Amino acid sequence: MQLKRPYLLFLGDVPDRLAAKTAQGIKDWRPEHCLGQLRLPGCRADLGIRDMTLEAAVEQGARTLVVGAVNRGGVFAPSWIEAIVKAIGLGMDVATGLHTRLSEVPAIAEAAARQRIELFDLRHPRQRFEVANGARRPGKRALAVGTDCAVGKKYTALALEREMLARGMQATFRATGQTGIFIAGRGVAIDAVVADFISGAVEWLCPANAPDHWDLVEGQGSLFHPSFAGVALGLIHGSQPDALILCHEPTRTHLRGLPHYPLPGIQPTIDSCLAHARLVNPAAVCVGMSVNTEALADSEAEDYLGGLEQRYGLPAADPIRHGMARLVDALAKI
Amino acid sequence: MQLKRPYLLFLGDVPDRLAAKTAQGIKDWRPEHCLGQLRLPGCRADLGIRDMTLEAAVEQGARTLVVGAVNRGGVFAPSWIEAIVKAIGLGMDVATGLHTRLSEVPAIAEAAARQRIELFDLRHPRQRFEVANGARRPGKRALAVGTDCAVGKKYTALALEREMLARGMQATFRATGQTGIFIAGRGVAIDAVVADFISGAVEWLCPANAPDHWDLVEGQGSLFHPSFAGVALGLIHGSQPDALILCHEPTRTHLRGLPHYPLPGIQPTIDSCLAHARLVNPAAVCVGMSVNTEALADSEAEDYLGGLEQRYGLPAADPIRHGMARLVDALAKI
Repeated sequence: MQLKRPYLLFLGDVPDRLAAKTAQGIKDWRPEHCLGQLRLPGCRADLGIRDMTLEAAVEQGARTLVVGAVNRGGVFAPSWIEAIVKAIGLGMDVATGLHTRLSEVPAIAEAAARQRIELFDLRHPRQRFEVANGARRPGKRALAVGTDCAVGKKYTALALEREMLARGMQATFRATGQTGIFIAGRGVAIDAVVADFISGAVEWLCPANAPDHWDLVEGQGSLFHPSFAGVALGLIHGSQPDALILCHEPTRTHLRGLPHYPLPGIQPTIDSCLAHARLVNPAAVCVGMSVNTEALADSEAEDYLGGLEQRYGLPAADPIRHGMARLVDALAKI
Repeated sequence: MQLKRPYLLFLGDVPDRLAAKTAQGIKDWRPEHCLGQLRLPGCRADLGIRDMTLEAAVEQGARTLVVGAVNRGGVFAPSWIEAIVKAIGLGMDVATGLHTRLSEVPAIAEAAARQRIELFDLRHPRQRFEVANGARRPGKRALAVGTDCAVGKKYTALALEREMLARGMQATFRATGQTGIFIAGRGVAIDAVVADFISGAVEWLCPANAPDHWDLVEGQGSLFHPSFAGVALGLIHGSQPDALILCHEPTRTHLRGLPHYPLPGIQPTIDSCLAHARLVNPAAVCVGMSVNTEALADSEAEDYLGGLEQRYGLPAADPIRHGMARLVDALAKI
């Protein structure tokens, strides 16, 4: 599975920026793959890139219409369907991360069959995976783990890749969620894989590689999040990490979606993730902390990160505010 | 999903007993639901119950043909298809735990549609589950966990249920694998659920109940088996166990299917399972050990179990050899 690029980013008629955050992520991390945006009347999101019609986009080489917005209830509005069918008629592939499959919409399925173009439902992986074999494989791998869901694991892995590539290191971001897959052009929506194959799918995603090549694996969930811990553990076992990066959001008071569950501590999270990682890679270490400090003022963020460094003896940085240079320094020593 | 009973157990033409072990498990634990067995020419397995033709079985009230045997490659042989289609023609439901879906065989799908009977592919759950919410719920739950796959978790849960019911306690075996589902008539093949919903499916399987009712939950995999640990963790979180029973097979030298992975120790397995269980139920305890001593002579088994009890300070028994009376004594104190 490889999405064809460049993309035209479809925002539909979403009511705010948040509903277009998938498209925003693609534009932030891979502007070179984004030819423009397509917005329907009433759209309140704006990525700050060129508005283009479908015809203009195709003329300028757009290969895939990326449905990079979330609709109410995860279904396709009639106005969206019209635009998608038109894109297919012009020869573009279509990719979406919505729960509803593109092929469940008859008009879209028929247009795709007629034009012989591909529909990519990233939430519904089509590959068949093997059961994980746990065999040691060459290449280095770092996995972003977290105290919770949505604390910046994807941005951490992407920022590590960016820093490594800037230094001339061999590095590949490995996507495990929809937005990550749009950014990388390939990957596995690991939470949508059948449970028996979680770690097998991760082994497939980050296979044997050159000894000095780094895979930067996007983490999901948390070992301490009772809704999604199985996915988090399968990622740890499947990625066979040499290094863990602990991701955290300091203002979060409870687990995402579960107000009755307080956030776990940083040290217990590191300890538990490392213990499980060492089953598949006895040399696994935690090299540092990546903290989403968006909610803090500059000086507060500096104080907080300095405090973490002192307490845990590991580098701590915000992937957006500071980049991952200090964590890559630590990874480069492995 | 509820399988209609009684069953006619279909063994096909399997070459040995092992290939019919699903049917054997149903017959061992629910003989009252097994009207008879149907064997094709050349079948080398025998459950020791009545051989019946399809016609005789239907006449005597059989409601479901249970394909309780494994074929080479998990597919349906032509001779099996003929018998299954005939059963459908006579008005029986059909249920299987094979990887291949019944509905993927055109002759079977057509016959089922014509007769309006139900096909149950236990490896392909049709329910939609919710994401787990982790909320505390009433009722007591015991979960069988293990040092490895296939160490007797299902038999442990079934033997606990049998002992509790014999004492007049309220108890329900909760099935999480194919054989268990045939035995209970309902359940979820948890390894076939989409990863995001593992613990949610388990919450659905063993919901809120009367305060003194025990759910005995069939475990799967092991936290220390890198192929399946995600499923094991989702079971721990979803079942919110009051009690864990550690299952073990003492002659096993390496993890099932992974010769390069030694078996984990009993104490680390208990410690890790308990630590994760306490996230969702701070009062969780390990009440004892259930050991498959089939490979040991009587005196060896006694010595081994005595040694375990001394070392860990917990009751240890073989669910087949000794039953689970001593573990139920411990559970009854919770």
